[in-house]
Amino acid sequence: MMGTGVLGSWVDGAPGSTVPLDDRGLQYGDGLFETMTIRGGRVRFLDAHLARLGSGCERLGLAQIPDQMLRSEIQQAVREAPDQSLLKLIVTRGSGPRGYAPRGQFPPRRVMSLFSPSGPVPEEVTLRIATQTAGESAGLAGIKHLNRLENVLASREAAHEHCFEALMLGASGQLVGGTMSNVFLASRGVLATPGVDRAGVAGVMRGLVLRECGLLGIPVEVRNVAAAELTRADEVFVTNARIGVVPARRLGEHVFRMKEIGARLAAHIGKLDA
Amino acid sequence: MMGTGVLGSWVDGAPGSTVPLDDRGLQYGDGLFETMTIRGGRVRFLDAHLARLGSGCERLGLAQIPDQMLRSEIQQAVREAPDQSLLKLIVTRGSGPRGYAPRGQFPPRRVMSLFSPSGPVPEEVTLRIATQTAGESAGLAGIKHLNRLENVLASREAAHEHCFEALMLGASGQLVGGTMSNVFLASRGVLATPGVDRAGVAGVMRGLVLRECGLLGIPVEVRNVAAAELTRADEVFVTNARIGVVPARRLGEHVFRMKEIGARLAAHIGKLDA
Repeated sequence: MMGTGVLGSWVDGAPGSTVPLDDRGLQYGDGLFETMTIRGGRVRFLDAHLARLGSGCERLGLAQIPDQMLRSEIQQAVREAPDQSLLKLIVTRGSGPRGYAPRGQFPPRRVMSLFSPSGPVPEEVTLRIATQTAGESAGLAGIKHLNRLENVLASREAAHEHCFEALMLGASGQLVGGTMSNVFLASRGVLATPGVDRAGVAGVMRGLVLRECGLLGIPVEVRNVAAAELTRADEVFVTNARIGVVPARRLGEHVFRMKEIGARLAAHIGKLDA
Repeated sequence: MMGTGVLGSWVDGAPGSTVPLDDRGLQYGDGLFETMTIRGGRVRFLDAHLARLGSGCERLGLAQIPDQMLRSEIQQAVREAPDQSLLKLIVTRGSGPRGYAPRGQFPPRRVMSLFSPSGPVPEEVTLRIATQTAGESAGLAGIKHLNRLENVLASREAAHEHCFEALMLGASGQLVGGTMSNVFLASRGVLATPGVDRAGVAGVMRGLVLRECGLLGIPVEVRNVAAAELTRADEVFVTNARIGVVPARRLGEHVFRMKEIGARLAAHIGKLDA
């Protein structure tokens, strides 16, 4: 059964459209995912995606998937994919007996779905702060895992208010990030973004922005960011692998007048050959 | 494909053993579950399980499943099920397009698996405190949802040390509960168990113990419980719908000498006609 906009799907490298009920991804959200953009018949930032996936497998204790196998399965899916289509790769701990504790080492299951392009990336976006908070869990922080109910509930709040993205706070009121993006603030030419060691996701685009800021000489701090800093910032932008870098126009009632650094990074990263 | 010990499985009421890849349970852990024990051809505490499921659907904004349909699907699965077999019911938000925000109201998907009896319930158990903490998220607290990676990681710690169960703490060091159970402490005849309004699951057996304590005249407090209280307690017991009430023998190196209240509740609840 193919959903809306699905151009193809594969399970463990072969065309397929279902997983067995005993898959631990379904049972417990026991797995990881990557959402990748395709350009010119290949995946942008593939190395960064695979590095994060490998690190997630290690953190969760999933068996590593041989790099060459994964690359070849991905290449098979993207070979004739249209530009700007999206490849979502889910890796679960595979099938296993009932019970939370993984018993034995199962081969991880690879699930890939190719989605048709989802429309142009907006030039600027509106944000809101979600009432749904992001739980802090050092064991899961930074990982792009499949436990995304908080993101679902926060996204629903954004959708109700016709916002592009909802920002989530931690229990102590600090900024964690967007439901599907990381968040940067700029004040007097200095960027700041929250760490991802207590909550949030270490986004591939976030990593790229941090790296490129170093090369471009833009100062950036990874630190605790209080929610109240957002509306005091000169500008705010959100990042992910699909949209790249996109300046925020509004956060609730607040309007950001500047977007220089975000726009500069967006243009710079759009031109990178990857 | 049937896993070990699986006696049967159903999807949306019909025999089935897979879900489509676009199921939001697989994609995001966007759903709920109940694990129910069968005795005498029916599900024990079925009303309590269905009430919790209905409350979870409401909290997550899943469409309610008509009660009569759900009961008839369950009855069909348990009719010839052996005593002490387990019925796990997963309800997901169903299939949907890519993206966290649920778009439109999908019919929830019901996934049922019947498992053969998993052996006798131990008379007492060993516990340990997991290093994996439980994130606090008011929006998800109390719900038996499918985001169970913290439980997976904590269970793995227990399994490594051959413990029956791992106890999880919140960020501020307070007790949340076991990975698959709720926890009660008794001190000088008074029971205490953590609330489930910031983290944890409102267990069906927990609810039953609270109710029966009222009937039996056993004082019980639902309150914040510091982890340090555990080893100072006279006795500790864990509860869930499969094991009922089971006293703890050990917590790490600490040995509990008493188990009177736990044993009394276990005997009492074992005899309830449900």
